[in-house]
Amino acid sequence: MNYKLIGNILGKVLLAEGGLLFLPLIAALCFGESALPFVVPMIFLFIIGAVLAKIKPDSDNLFAKEGFVCVGLSWILMSVFGAIPFVISKDIPSYLNALFETVSGFTTTGASILENPEILSRGCMFWRLFTHWIGGMGVLVFIAAILPVSGAHYIHIMRAEVPGPTVSKIMPRVRQTARILYLIYLVLTVVECIFLLFGGMSFYDAILHSFATAGTGGFSTLTTSIAGFNSVYIEMVISVFMFLFGCNFNLFYLIIMGQGLQALKSEEFRVYIGIVIGSVIVIAANIASSVGGFLSGLRYSFFQVTSIITTTGFSSCDFDRWPELSRWILVILMFIGGCAGSTAGGLKVSRIIILFKSYMAELKRMVLPSRIVTVRLEQKPVENEKIRGIHVFFTVYIAITAIGVLILSLNGTDMVTNITASVACISNVGPGLSGVGPAFSYFLFSPLSKISLIIEMLLGRLEIFPLLLLFTPSIWKKK
Amino acid sequence: MNYKLIGNILGKVLLAEGGLLFLPLIAALCFGESALPFVVPMIFLFIIGAVLAKIKPDSDNLFAKEGFVCVGLSWILMSVFGAIPFVISKDIPSYLNALFETVSGFTTTGASILENPEILSRGCMFWRLFTHWIGGMGVLVFIAAILPVSGAHYIHIMRAEVPGPTVSKIMPRVRQTARILYLIYLVLTVVECIFLLFGGMSFYDAILHSFATAGTGGFSTLTTSIAGFNSVYIEMVISVFMFLFGCNFNLFYLIIMGQGLQALKSEEFRVYIGIVIGSVIVIAANIASSVGGFLSGLRYSFFQVTSIITTTGFSSCDFDRWPELSRWILVILMFIGGCAGSTAGGLKVSRIIILFKSYMAELKRMVLPSRIVTVRLEQKPVENEKIRGIHVFFTVYIAITAIGVLILSLNGTDMVTNITASVACISNVGPGLSGVGPAFSYFLFSPLSKISLIIEMLLGRLEIFPLLLLFTPSIWKKK
Repeated sequence: MNYKLIGNILGKVLLAEGGLLFLPLIAALCFGESALPFVVPMIFLFIIGAVLAKIKPDSDNLFAKEGFVCVGLSWILMSVFGAIPFVISKDIPSYLNALFETVSGFTTTGASILENPEILSRGCMFWRLFTHWIGGMGVLVFIAAILPVSGAHYIHIMRAEVPGPTVSKIMPRVRQTARILYLIYLVLTVVECIFLLFGGMSFYDAILHSFATAGTGGFSTLTTSIAGFNSVYIEMVISVFMFLFGCNFNLFYLIIMGQGLQALKSEEFRVYIGIVIGSVIVIAANIASSVGGFLSGLRYSFFQVTSIITTTGFSSCDFDRWPELSRWILVILMFIGGCAGSTAGGLKVSRIIILFKSYMAELKRMVLPSRIVTVRLEQKPVENEKIRGIHVFFTVYIAITAIGVLILSLNGTDMVTNITASVACISNVGPGLSGVGPAFSYFLFSPLSKISLIIEMLLGRLEIFPLLLLFTPSIWKKK
Repeated sequence: MNYKLIGNILGKVLLAEGGLLFLPLIAALCFGESALPFVVPMIFLFIIGAVLAKIKPDSDNLFAKEGFVCVGLSWILMSVFGAIPFVISKDIPSYLNALFETVSGFTTTGASILENPEILSRGCMFWRLFTHWIGGMGVLVFIAAILPVSGAHYIHIMRAEVPGPTVSKIMPRVRQTARILYLIYLVLTVVECIFLLFGGMSFYDAILHSFATAGTGGFSTLTTSIAGFNSVYIEMVISVFMFLFGCNFNLFYLIIMGQGLQALKSEEFRVYIGIVIGSVIVIAANIASSVGGFLSGLRYSFFQVTSIITTTGFSSCDFDRWPELSRWILVILMFIGGCAGSTAGGLKVSRIIILFKSYMAELKRMVLPSRIVTVRLEQKPVENEKIRGIHVFFTVYIAITAIGVLILSLNGTDMVTNITASVACISNVGPGLSGVGPAFSYFLFSPLSKISLIIEMLLGRLEIFPLLLLFTPSIWKKK
């Protein structure tokens, strides 16, 4: 384990977080609020960050496991410091609650312990929704984009931080790839913001909701989420952008490069769009009678399906009151999640495709045991190790969800609340059904439950292994 | 595909079912009921069976896929004919309901559409609980035990019918293995029956409940299941036997051979007993306050845990009213199921162990990518193909359960009902929670839901592939 290099990178992460706190600080100052909630953590971050970043690593060598450890530790540290502003401002006096809200922000979950988010100071509200934007693309990718990093091995860090089973380097160098990803991310966010301004949102609301959409987070400035704006135009704009942020960012790069047609041929994209269209139509038909017709059903269903499959978690109505069929489809969509290489959570569409194909391959092998069957994704064969990894991932995902429900059961909350809270947190969705439906918050859960959900959110965002490896003793052995 | 051989074996299956119908026929005659409900299907079975069994196969060659097809078709045919007595006797006038009850019987699920099973004629009640006994060990294993079968390849059929990822031939010949399995099965059933007679049960009740325990089925002659006998002794006897029938039968063979110590060293057995003890204690503590103390809690919890993990489904109280923690533990136990090579359903303990170890192996590979990691069960290495098969099995199991819930959602029944009904049927448990809790039946579901649950029960009992392969067009191609 290359401890010095890890220390060095963690230092940079803390410095970056300190730098990012400038934005909410400016927001607070603009609205005439105290600067203290942001200045205090910034001082800590800059001092500790500078000390760590000073460490000179003996070598630039970085293996996959060190990439995992780096990412796991970075996210824990970022959350621990990121919670401080809420406590100092007394907006969220309990540190545990503040940590819950911060982890929920960074992991782009959007599960809130705030029953009325309107009570937040403007600076803290900015920070709360900005964490979605930071966490969506990842802070280590951000560092790669802005700081000089030792190139060749940094890909292991990106692999660990970017969601999905495969990370393709768009460009030969990690730094270029990271820059292009962040550029696409930034441009799409700005475009959404402009569209929202046209819809009559204030600049403050528009920029914050663009952050929350871009990271597929789901926090809102209003208790009633997007329903509070009461505008079909705003709902449609946000729906479309949620859908876009749930796509693999490689597609946007292809489009920029004039290869739009190739982008549309992507297998994952086609399945993704198929699931969205199918779910929208079925739910629209299912809820039509209760919302005054199929067209009105389409409006609510399009918004909610894009919101849930991309694991954003905005709501434009109380979908917990929908009929059972629609509610269960939403639960399945929570598990599926968006595309690999997007800011979305969940299992990811490409993993679902590979799981399905590996099942079909198993059937083929039974019919003709002598035949060699290859699983392909996007016309390329998928190695057996990758398939095995995806199977293990799926199994552990389900197991963690079930253990999460077990811990939540101690609260005495009902089973639907417990199941959907656990799914909504590991899949980084935010709201679930019943007691954690869009009309409620996570405030009432016990401290133990909150800790368990915090862990689930981190496990979900980092796709399990970076975090679990931290608790594997053998990884800490010096070789 | 060796069609002639398959036809020949199917013929034997139908003949065997016709022969097995003699027992309920005798019961009906003893109680002075009409013989018609049994004589009619027997005539059909004997004629069709004899015609099919007359087919002379060109060769004895039987490949794995033909084993699957044989088992899949046998179980469908057995169920189709097995439902006839209920319809002719007018005990269950609707054929679909009768089919549901029969499939539930053969698959040892024990999910009932009867709101008051007491209304059944004595003959039909005998047949209803006897199907558990037939389905528990499997009719094709039965045929291997009593009829001359082409030895070398019949193991493929046993592999497809006996639950669990591995079937070890206890003896070098299939026929001997099948005979020993059935002998153990028969002896244990008789011993349980004797114990139940000592508890004051009538001979009729004792034999029927022994059938239902042996097959880990769960049908009872009473609406209130075992609670209706109101006897701690009877509960304890049935608990212990449920536990035993959830063990791998190889263990009993080892004990008979004087290798009891080796049996106790079995990894699967130890994990199985660990899960049982752990669950019993946690649930007992959890329900203690509501049932008048920890000891009383132990009584109900021991019965229910053994009943659910072995996927029997008897109830000694309304566990649907237990606190959320206990209810959720029961749901997890439904998924886990008993040991491989037992009559229990569910995923099976050995698969859970392999899934867990393959996760640990994945972690090890991440820490030391160059190391070769082997997964072992019972000290023996498990091949990669087997591990892959188990992962695919787990994924498909979860997917089918989720699709089952989707179809049930069309009924408008609540989510807990839908989820637990789907789990209870695919895992062959029987009762679930809420609307399918021990106090209710499956009567009210729509025909579509019943068909879907029938398919889930068969998929669960045959461990998915034998049935799904029937719907894979390429398997029917003549080569």
